[in-house]
Amino acid sequence: MDEAECRARLSSARVGRLATVRPDGGPHVVACCFAVQGDRLWTAVDAKPKTTTRLQRLDNIRAHPRASLLVDHYEEDWDALWWVRVDGHAAVLDDGEEREAALAALIAKYRQYATAAPRGAVIAIAVERWSGWSAR
Amino acid sequence: MDEAECRARLSSARVGRLATVRPDGGPHVVACCFAVQGDRLWTAVDAKPKTTTRLQRLDNIRAHPRASLLVDHYEEDWDALWWVRVDGHAAVLDDGEEREAALAALIAKYRQYATAAPRGAVIAIAVERWSGWSAR
Repeated sequence: MDEAECRARLSSARVGRLATVRPDGGPHVVACCFAVQGDRLWTAVDAKPKTTTRLQRLDNIRAHPRASLLVDHYEEDWDALWWVRVDGHAAVLDDGEEREAALAALIAKYRQYATAAPRGAVIAIAVERWSGWSAR
Repeated sequence: MDEAECRARLSSARVGRLATVRPDGGPHVVACCFAVQGDRLWTAVDAKPKTTTRLQRLDNIRAHPRASLLVDHYEEDWDALWWVRVDGHAAVLDDGEEREAALAALIAKYRQYATAAPRGAVIAIAVERWSGWSAR
C-alpha cells in the first residue's frame, strides 16, 4: 500500500489503537479517537471534571516519547482485511497553540466533541513512518 | 468491569490489537486473531510458503517478553464504548504441545483457519492482569 493510500485510509478511520511503552518498559495499548494533518497526528485525553487527568498513556510518553498508532479493518472475509500504521515521535501538549489547533481538528472530525470538548492534554505524534497492508 | 465480564467480552471478540516493544525500545502494534483459555491467550503467525516467518512481533517478544492485547468496541454513540485489555508475559512457541493446543483452539474459533492452518510460530501470553471499562 503506498503512502497516499495509507494517508487516505488513516484519515477516514474513526478509531485507532495507540501503543506506547510504560516507564517500566512494558507495552501499553488503548483505543482512541484521533485527527491527522500532514505528518502530525493528535489524540486528546477526555478529561472529565473530578477525574484525574493523569493517565497511563501520558506517563508513558513522558518517559518514552515514541508512539505507534494502528487503524485496521476486520471482517470474517479475510480477503478484505487491511491495516495502516504510523510510527513516530510523541509529545504531550498541556497547552499552547498546537494543542488548540489539535482540539479544533478533533472537534471538526467528531461531532461528539462539539458538546463536550476535551479538556485535558493532547498527544501529538510526529509521523516518521507510514506502513500499510491490504489482503487484496 | 469485573474480571468475569472482561473474560466474557475478550473470549467472544474476533479481533484484538497486540502491543509489544521493539528491540530498540519503541512500541509496536498489530491487529490479530486470538484464542483464550483460562489465563492463556494465543495468537498465531499466518506464515505463508515463501514468505518469511520472521516477523517484527516475534523479534519484539524475544527481546522484551511482555505483551498487551486490547479488544474494544467503537460506535458513534460514545455511550456504547467499551474495552478490555490483558497484560502479561509473552513467549514465542516454535513447536511443542502448547503450540498444538493453541492451533487447535484457534482453528475451533476461526473457521477461516480450517482450510489454511497457521504454520508459523504461536505467541502465548500468560495473562497477569485483566482490565476493562464500559461507558455505561
